[in-house]
Amino acid sequence: MKAKRCLLAILLILSFLSISTAATPTTKKIRTRKPCKSMVFYFHDIIYNGKNAKNATSAIVGSPQWGNKTILAGNNHFGDLVVFDDPVTLDNNLHSNPVGRAQGFYIYDKKEIFTAWLGFSFVFNSTRHKGSINFAGADPLMNKTRDISVIGGTGDFFMARGVATLMTDAFEGEVYFRLRTHIKLYECW
Amino acid sequence: MKAKRCLLAILLILSFLSISTAATPTTKKIRTRKPCKSMVFYFHDIIYNGKNAKNATSAIVGSPQWGNKTILAGNNHFGDLVVFDDPVTLDNNLHSNPVGRAQGFYIYDKKEIFTAWLGFSFVFNSTRHKGSINFAGADPLMNKTRDISVIGGTGDFFMARGVATLMTDAFEGEVYFRLRTHIKLYECW
Amino acid sequence: MKAKRCLLAILLILSFLSISTAATPTTKKIRTRKPCKSMVFYFHDIIYNGKNAKNATSAIVGSPQWGNKTILAGNNHFGDLVVFDDPVTLDNNLHSNPVGRAQGFYIYDKKEIFTAWLGFSFVFNSTRHKGSINFAGADPLMNKTRDISVIGGTGDFFMARGVATLMTDAFEGEVYFRLRTHIKLYECW
Repeated sequence: MKAKRCLLAILLILSFLSISTAATPTTKKIRTRKPCKSMVFYFHDIIYNGKNAKNATSAIVGSPQWGNKTILAGNNHFGDLVVFDDPVTLDNNLHSNPVGRAQGFYIYDKKEIFTAWLGFSFVFNSTRHKGSINFAGADPLMNKTRDISVIGGTGDFFMARGVATLMTDAFEGEVYFRLRTHIKLYECW
Repeated sequence: MKAKRCLLAILLILSFLSISTAATPTTKKIRTRKPCKSMVFYFHDIIYNGKNAKNATSAIVGSPQWGNKTILAGNNHFGDLVVFDDPVTLDNNLHSNPVGRAQGFYIYDKKEIFTAWLGFSFVFNSTRHKGSINFAGADPLMNKTRDISVIGGTGDFFMARGVATLMTDAFEGEVYFRLRTHIKLYECW
Repeated sequence: MKAKRCLLAILLILSFLSISTAATPTTKKIRTRKPCKSMVFYFHDIIYNGKNAKNATSAIVGSPQWGNKTILAGNNHFGDLVVFDDPVTLDNNLHSNPVGRAQGFYIYDKKEIFTAWLGFSFVFNSTRHKGSINFAGADPLMNKTRDISVIGGTGDFFMARGVATLMTDAFEGEVYFRLRTHIKLYECW
């Protein structure tokens, strides 16, 4: 009798567990917002202005009817498409040893204020990091900080997802700016 | 004896469970396709044509050799790159109070029919929604509906993933179109 | 007594299990890197050079100050933005029956060597596959193989995530190239 009751109890546990397991994907997961990886980098953008070919790390490659390829357009640069290959450093010094490259593009996309859309990657190939982190998102650059998405990664950052908080750390005229990038990954494989 | 057998059975269950739990990531998950969040928005695009600077919300910023910056190119606009900052509304009325902005770009990418590639964000900053939803994907715009990917999100839409179904709700000549966007998120944090 | 002890043990197991289940999302998942789907495709890009309008599948639509729309620019094509609608085949023969289209853009983004940034989709509409796979990432095309991210999918590839390994399978002058694309999905719904 006792053994039977025990068996019954075990069967009950099993059936309960199988139900709860099967139901898992449909229930709302409570996920903590604690990053599995957190990193801070700086990248440095020097826009080609017709005179700085040697130092420039980016160039205007698309512009609206009222624009050109060496001066950012009026109307808050609305319509300027810039392609870049910028050094990535661990601190805010342009002349620090780069640990990677930030490569991709931004498009100024609003007439009334400065706002851009970003699609780019951090590309690492050192003993410290190998692989890439891919980003996309809106950059309302008048805000002190703004969040874009980490949409994927490769190598050391295989299948990464998360959020990157951008902060304009410096800008000089319309030729140089530096972005502090705080990467927080919430999916790490 | 009976208690021992019971203990044995329990241990068996436990070991079985620990194995099956450890194996979970390699087995195929059966996930339901029920969205954790479903929302419908409209956005309104008015392309700059050289005469509507005040009302235009988008502009041609890249074009093929045979194109220009004020008229969409021949060959089904193949090669035209358009940057936009469009109002997002809850209904299909251009003059409704915008609840956000759709910001990014599209590129017409086929000679034979109208087809585009989209990279953009919905940016919200109201009491209703704060944050952004990022999209990417092919838009074969001759199809009544077509799906693109929600590749990430921030703020209220932190780490979102899903699918957005686009439908051309209206278009007037080559200057105005309105897209109905049904966002279905399948990953909500 | 024995049955009671047995029940106690079972309750202990249950409470232990419910705790460990609740804690799961915060613990680091050990995920295997075995794809749930693996596919190989080729796509073929014929760049418009002013003379091949009929055969061209892509065109330069943005270029730096020193470039133009029919010849890839100097400085390793830095700044050239190319939009494409390329046939996708199962083998490396340009004239094989296409199983889909590769649609999107690439931007050459480095002065010193050939490197590009890609945003594109594979679009399928056949009995074999229906739906799209969306890609983004850096393409350091001097490397024999390089990885980009699968950032989403629709239809048969609903909610897909993964990595695609690109390999330049052939290139002829600056007009034709063929990319072998090995898609490995690690999230399949």
